[in-house]
Amino acid sequence: MKYQAINFAEKLSLFSEYWSPKVVAEMNDYQLKLVKLKGEFVWHRHSDTDETFIVLEGQLRIDFKDGHVFLNAGEMFIVPKGVEHRPFAEKEVKAIIIEPKGVVNTGDAIADPLTAESDVWI
Amino acid sequence: MKYQAINFAEKLSLFSEYWSPKVVAEMNDYQLKLVKLKGEFVWHRHSDTDETFIVLEGQLRIDFKDGHVFLNAGEMFIVPKGVEHRPFAEKEVKAIIIEPKGVVNTGDAIADPLTAESDVWI
Repeated sequence: MKYQAINFAEKLSLFSEYWSPKVVAEMNDYQLKLVKLKGEFVWHRHSDTDETFIVLEGQLRIDFKDGHVFLNAGEMFIVPKGVEHRPFAEKEVKAIIIEPKGVVNTGDAIADPLTAESDVWI
Repeated sequence: MKYQAINFAEKLSLFSEYWSPKVVAEMNDYQLKLVKLKGEFVWHRHSDTDETFIVLEGQLRIDFKDGHVFLNAGEMFIVPKGVEHRPFAEKEVKAIIIEPKGVVNTGDAIADPLTAESDVWI
């Protein structure tokens, strides 16, 4: 079929690992990624870009040095460029991440054990 | 509260007009907009940018000159730059649109009756 919708649930069923964003679409030089999150991520920042989180399932907490935000399904938040943050999910969270192509998940915390390849499609 | 999630349902409850995207967040020079769609839009294209549609409720059809795509809740599609398209919704659709700041909803069909202001926040 020439024109094909991208179904989030279907794409999410194709992988199980946490903290490993999978690209599902590209808009200009931005990518939309699906990710499963569980547990505590590493503190990091993205020096060059804002980062959008949209939660599809579960509750995501994003910690900042001076506060935090809870995101439930149907909610979003944009982490501003340069701001240190740490995602945390007590139970599994399914989310969309939107950011420019090439952004690494751990930002300035390069080579962290949680650093994932940045351009893996699913 | 310093850090505040954006709740799509709450934002969508604040307006009722169709084909009039409301900006809810900005990521770098891109905007995330919420929109309610019903009926047939105008054929148009965006010469400078791709355009992302994510459907939250309802079923959106996007017509192309040589085909179409149906988007249900939890599905997305990116209309490539320069491609003529016409959104259509038999019943009300609630959707997210993501595109660079300044993009006008009717693209090259400027001054169509359906042309909306491009930077209205909600």
